[in-house]
Amino acid sequence: MTETNRQLILRTRPTGLLSPGDLQLGESPVPAIADGQALARVKYLSIDPTMRVWMATDSYMPAVGIGDVMRSAGFAEVVESRHKDFKEGAKVVGLTGLQDYCVIDPAGTRNWFQKIPPIPFVSDTTFLGVLGITGITAYFGMTDIGKPQQGETLVVSAAAGATGSIAGQIGKIQGCRVVGIAGGPEKCKWITEELGFDAGVDYKRPDWKEELAAATPKGVDINYENVGGEIMKAVLERMNLHGRVVLCGFISGYRNREAEAIALGTIIVKRLKVQGLLVSDYMDRAKEAITQLGKWKMFGKLKDRETIVEGLEKAPDAINMLFTGGNIGKLIVKV
Amino acid sequence: MTETNRQLILRTRPTGLLSPGDLQLGESPVPAIADGQALARVKYLSIDPTMRVWMATDSYMPAVGIGDVMRSAGFAEVVESRHKDFKEGAKVVGLTGLQDYCVIDPAGTRNWFQKIPPIPFVSDTTFLGVLGITGITAYFGMTDIGKPQQGETLVVSAAAGATGSIAGQIGKIQGCRVVGIAGGPEKCKWITEELGFDAGVDYKRPDWKEELAAATPKGVDINYENVGGEIMKAVLERMNLHGRVVLCGFISGYRNREAEAIALGTIIVKRLKVQGLLVSDYMDRAKEAITQLGKWKMFGKLKDRETIVEGLEKAPDAINMLFTGGNIGKLIVKV
Repeated sequence: MTETNRQLILRTRPTGLLSPGDLQLGESPVPAIADGQALARVKYLSIDPTMRVWMATDSYMPAVGIGDVMRSAGFAEVVESRHKDFKEGAKVVGLTGLQDYCVIDPAGTRNWFQKIPPIPFVSDTTFLGVLGITGITAYFGMTDIGKPQQGETLVVSAAAGATGSIAGQIGKIQGCRVVGIAGGPEKCKWITEELGFDAGVDYKRPDWKEELAAATPKGVDINYENVGGEIMKAVLERMNLHGRVVLCGFISGYRNREAEAIALGTIIVKRLKVQGLLVSDYMDRAKEAITQLGKWKMFGKLKDRETIVEGLEKAPDAINMLFTGGNIGKLIVKV
Repeated sequence: MTETNRQLILRTRPTGLLSPGDLQLGESPVPAIADGQALARVKYLSIDPTMRVWMATDSYMPAVGIGDVMRSAGFAEVVESRHKDFKEGAKVVGLTGLQDYCVIDPAGTRNWFQKIPPIPFVSDTTFLGVLGITGITAYFGMTDIGKPQQGETLVVSAAAGATGSIAGQIGKIQGCRVVGIAGGPEKCKWITEELGFDAGVDYKRPDWKEELAAATPKGVDINYENVGGEIMKAVLERMNLHGRVVLCGFISGYRNREAEAIALGTIIVKRLKVQGLLVSDYMDRAKEAITQLGKWKMFGKLKDRETIVEGLEKAPDAINMLFTGGNIGKLIVKV
């Protein structure tokens, strides 16, 4: 065990991509714990688009304060405990922050720490992906908002990303024609050949809008949207009357304010239902999602992939990868 | 009976407000009818924001063709009949167009003509307003999308307009706190003192956003939106988590493309449900709405008001009134 706690501290709020120095590596002593707390060693960090929002502005959570440890979800193991429910060796997921050690303090700071059960054949990082926030998000986005019906067409953007890849597979399980939009042939190949999507549309090709049209001959009934901007616009143009838009994210808009709008005329003319999705609304039903996702995974109906970046100090680069299309599947930093 | 049929013909597509000459008055012979048709004299024209859309672009209906009679809803009386269901003297509502005479052709052109029943104490124009498309729109917008719950706060924009004034009253009947946004003290007085809204916010006052905030101390649960742009933005900023937006129109955006967008971030952060509303989806349930609206009107729970402009030739000016705030309640042209 190191005696110091490396931490990535928010120094400046980014405007576009993260610049060197927005997050600065610092060191502080490993925190001492009080009664009712536990100390955990962070093993894996979940790198999610929402972190870019947390760096810039108040949203559904307050912005991270300048000078504070950068907020993130992560996987950790308890190394010292003064709390009866979080004994030494317990594996947890929660808002660890970008650091080596975190304090679990159920009565105090609300960092959502949950113990994970010892399930055979499931890797620790799965609890950040398919069986974690990512999977729960996709599950409720699809079942509660998208409500796929047999034979409908679902289009997922950022389809090779963590959430999109799961949302699309859930669509397949529910009997939809599923089209994924992703950047580059490798991602498109993965979602079609490995995940079973009916088509992959590579938005880096000049004719991608024609490809999207060709891949959706019956129009689009559900849009699981992660990107916004031009991509969302093209999908909405293909939407059928009374289509549903699961608005999970708009990666293109986190850096570019102009990309974060949707035309009211389209919503009216097509009588769309556009609904915002945040997983925090569903945490009391997390078990339902995890149980179902776990079954699907066990029976091979749900496949996942991870991009693992080594080293806490690489976390800022990893965050940028989300916006430059650098990862396939769940993006994780191994601390 | 005149021997000619005056018609307002679409000559040019407007860019902002209608200019003189966009719609030109022409004359043609009163049409001869064939078997299965009826000829009706148009008495009243329903002047609706959607007409501005029909003039400019394809939408949920094709744009009106250049050189064609301008489309509009209206009230007419059959003067000659070769159709067993539309006898001479029958009163009808449907897409009459801006003209003196229209042909009812149930087997041919789809102009939605419906006979109206002879209800005592109900004026003919009521079937264009509370008991017509306007009322049906407000009814289903509120009951099917807004779904008001006792004690919730509803904000209606263009609240002194035809649809907004009814939507707000339905909100009151359902037990909501209802706040209307309207332009000028006369309209605000009408919606509060006559219609029973809890507050009226005059958006022409410089401090209207503060007034909106003061009028919605518990935030906003439902936004019945007719305006878009800055007004919608201000309402969305007051929305509570999981609020519903009934997107009925966006008058500000029909002339100004920039006003017709909604921020994706707001939808996600507040997990809003934004749903487009078009009354055509509900025409098979029209009777349900009319029955209920009729009861409310009969028992004095639903009040209405009309702005009547005299003369077919004034219809273009009347259309512009919708966008300059010239009317209170249902805007009608008496032919």
